[in-house]
Amino acid sequence: MKTIIIGRMTPPNFLSVSEALLLLRRKRLAPQTLIEACLRQIEKWNPTLNAFITVLREPEAGNRPSNGRLANIPIALKDLFETKGIKTTGGSKFFADYVPSSDAVVVQKLKADGAVLIGKTNLHEVALGVTNNNPHWGACRNPWDMRRVSGGSSGGSAVAVATGMALAALGTDTGGSIRIPAALCGVVGLKPTYGRISLRGVLPLSWNLDHVGPLTRSVQDAALLLQSLAGYDPEDPFSIDHPTDNYTTGLGKGVRGWRMALAVGTYIEAAEAEVLEAVQQTAQVFRKLGAKVEEVEMSFLREAALANALMVPADGAAYHRERLAEHADWFGADVRQRLETGGATTSTEYILARKTQTEMRHRLGRFFREYPILLLPATPVTAPLIEGSDAVEQARRLTRFTAPFNLSGVPAISIPCGFDRQGLPIGLQIVAGAWNEAAALRAAYAYERETAWGTRRPPLVQE
Amino acid sequence: MKTIIIGRMTPPNFLSVSEALLLLRRKRLAPQTLIEACLRQIEKWNPTLNAFITVLREPEAGNRPSNGRLANIPIALKDLFETKGIKTTGGSKFFADYVPSSDAVVVQKLKADGAVLIGKTNLHEVALGVTNNNPHWGACRNPWDMRRVSGGSSGGSAVAVATGMALAALGTDTGGSIRIPAALCGVVGLKPTYGRISLRGVLPLSWNLDHVGPLTRSVQDAALLLQSLAGYDPEDPFSIDHPTDNYTTGLGKGVRGWRMALAVGTYIEAAEAEVLEAVQQTAQVFRKLGAKVEEVEMSFLREAALANALMVPADGAAYHRERLAEHADWFGADVRQRLETGGATTSTEYILARKTQTEMRHRLGRFFREYPILLLPATPVTAPLIEGSDAVEQARRLTRFTAPFNLSGVPAISIPCGFDRQGLPIGLQIVAGAWNEAAALRAAYAYERETAWGTRRPPLVQE
Repeated sequence: MKTIIIGRMTPPNFLSVSEALLLLRRKRLAPQTLIEACLRQIEKWNPTLNAFITVLREPEAGNRPSNGRLANIPIALKDLFETKGIKTTGGSKFFADYVPSSDAVVVQKLKADGAVLIGKTNLHEVALGVTNNNPHWGACRNPWDMRRVSGGSSGGSAVAVATGMALAALGTDTGGSIRIPAALCGVVGLKPTYGRISLRGVLPLSWNLDHVGPLTRSVQDAALLLQSLAGYDPEDPFSIDHPTDNYTTGLGKGVRGWRMALAVGTYIEAAEAEVLEAVQQTAQVFRKLGAKVEEVEMSFLREAALANALMVPADGAAYHRERLAEHADWFGADVRQRLETGGATTSTEYILARKTQTEMRHRLGRFFREYPILLLPATPVTAPLIEGSDAVEQARRLTRFTAPFNLSGVPAISIPCGFDRQGLPIGLQIVAGAWNEAAALRAAYAYERETAWGTRRPPLVQE
Repeated sequence: MKTIIIGRMTPPNFLSVSEALLLLRRKRLAPQTLIEACLRQIEKWNPTLNAFITVLREPEAGNRPSNGRLANIPIALKDLFETKGIKTTGGSKFFADYVPSSDAVVVQKLKADGAVLIGKTNLHEVALGVTNNNPHWGACRNPWDMRRVSGGSSGGSAVAVATGMALAALGTDTGGSIRIPAALCGVVGLKPTYGRISLRGVLPLSWNLDHVGPLTRSVQDAALLLQSLAGYDPEDPFSIDHPTDNYTTGLGKGVRGWRMALAVGTYIEAAEAEVLEAVQQTAQVFRKLGAKVEEVEMSFLREAALANALMVPADGAAYHRERLAEHADWFGADVRQRLETGGATTSTEYILARKTQTEMRHRLGRFFREYPILLLPATPVTAPLIEGSDAVEQARRLTRFTAPFNLSGVPAISIPCGFDRQGLPIGLQIVAGAWNEAAALRAAYAYERETAWGTRRPPLVQE
């Protein structure tokens, strides 16, 4: 009965996906009530926060399966997932009027499971950047402090989830673009293993580093969405044929006896003191839960972050080569600069970065056989100010701890683990070995249940 | 008793590995007799053919396991496998005096199996090139016509095997460097799946495309050597952890009922008429053996060959970046030119080639689920003349049919399938799906047993 009680106390648009599913099934909540609650919240707060590029006010309900595993759950999509008949801008002038003729594979999957598409969210232009100050659609603001960035490039998705404009959202992550906004906005963001989720119908940034993943308000919701999204796509050359797990069944089994590494070393310790402290305290929580947490020197991640930082703009420049050649001026200044720098990367630099990638996969493969779980901050700082941030410098800083796991392709989740003195959320990153999303989710769930940091809402939207 | 009779008729240095092993075990052949027969052949023909850079006249016999699976078998190594205490030149001025302090993993494996290292073979400078006209150690000549190239870059290994200077040899293959010299010299050359054999202690050309493999006089010998060489190396980041098969057990089980593709289309038909005809006739042999051979349009391999041709010099330039910067003049003219062109490759060009690589792996993955075996020529022409060949043009031509399988990483074997009117050998290439060397070997063995093209020896060494 606990969930029913929560259901009564919580406005429908702030229910977790699993709570909402229960209430919908028990007919304690009407689908339209839930959808309208989200749309009202968008109406109320989107003019200020700028989380959506397109709001779908009349989502087609017609042929939605009413008994799917996400039946009637309002979900927001970062505006680079192709949606049939709905414009998909990629946050870019080039795609401002682009209306795809079919849905991305993940959109098809969500629809098949009965989800409701509530809108397309703001993002950094062509997903390149993490400060999310879009030159065409404006900055997406952080609901914990509107002078601050929401993080990017999936910032709109994080804000939509944090503020109850949607129950969950999809993002993409090439250097941290799901985990960074999740951390800065106090929600859960999961980047699964490279190749786990189809990329077909997703506007690319890097064919080698792009990952699709969910942003949610709880770990269980992340597991629910992963279950819907995961699976080999034989038509996507970047998809990898590896069996999926049941991500919800074992979620609550705890971490007793698990060996975990808490990252230490100069590379990690460059984070803000408050962030470091919050993450160190998570080790105590896991110890209390029965895990064996050891401090492990992880400064070798620096090399992985550098290789990722070199590859992302180079890969972006390769994908956007014709647009760069024909209309470079259509890109915003910082994206253009980064793409042009990327395009000037030599093949030798790029090849050495790919070599680092292979070596890092190998090294982390071994690491995760010894320590099934790695704990480190999601970002070294809490949300920076929108004004006065240097986009390139900020990107380097914010991706410091996330980018190594794009390069190596292993799954990583960011969950709330506290607040700094300014009241800004801090993200704990939990990383596992390739294909072992289930372990990362189980550890995250155990932590979340023990601490409940994730239940706090931005003061702004508590009215 | 048959093998014993062959044993008596065949000079020891022309025995197959399996025949020699039988005679050695039955004490019908003394190890020293076998080794000396090889050394005499080297003494007699190496001054003319130039197959060896270093001959090991007194191979250390001391702690050789006398009951290993390659006990007392004289094997030659392309001079880019590191050998403890024995110079390893890479065919290059840069490594002319390089004496490694340890053995490459594959050399350790051969030694552990009791093999005798008979010498280090000539190759194209730093393994970049296929006409094998080494500027420092001279051209390695084709024993079927000494005015012609032996093919490269593992030319010395192919010649050593073809002429009875060794019973088998190791080569490496980045764009065809095992299969091309095997085809041009009338021996068997196997490039296994990428990641199947350790690359540790092998001078690199491309971290992404290099493969180690055997050159032998029979398919069974290729299977025997693969059994010794194959296996995951946890210390090599490029090695892939995939179970090995027993490559000799099923070898003789035939191809009845197998579905095979015979490559056709404009890309294939640019080969010389005599080569095409010989390969088309192999389809008849396989049909007679009970296989179902269908003609399949394979011109999409062009794109794979082009991507490989772009990547090899770019990868080589990345590995040799310091040597290029400090002593570019130490490289021979054609290698230097190719490395400098490679170094000038943009990251965009390289990234698009890597994308093609992923797409080609995906496409061929599907292809081999439909057709477990693909038949096509190893090279579009028989051995070209040494004089008057344009190295770059020749490389593009000779790698046309081999390079696609470096890019895609699938196993491919070249076996003799006839001779042109000038008496030069023609190579049939048999390709299988990733990790399925066993299928390629079994098809090759069935063909070899039916036709026995591989038993002809170069007229030169028949005296």
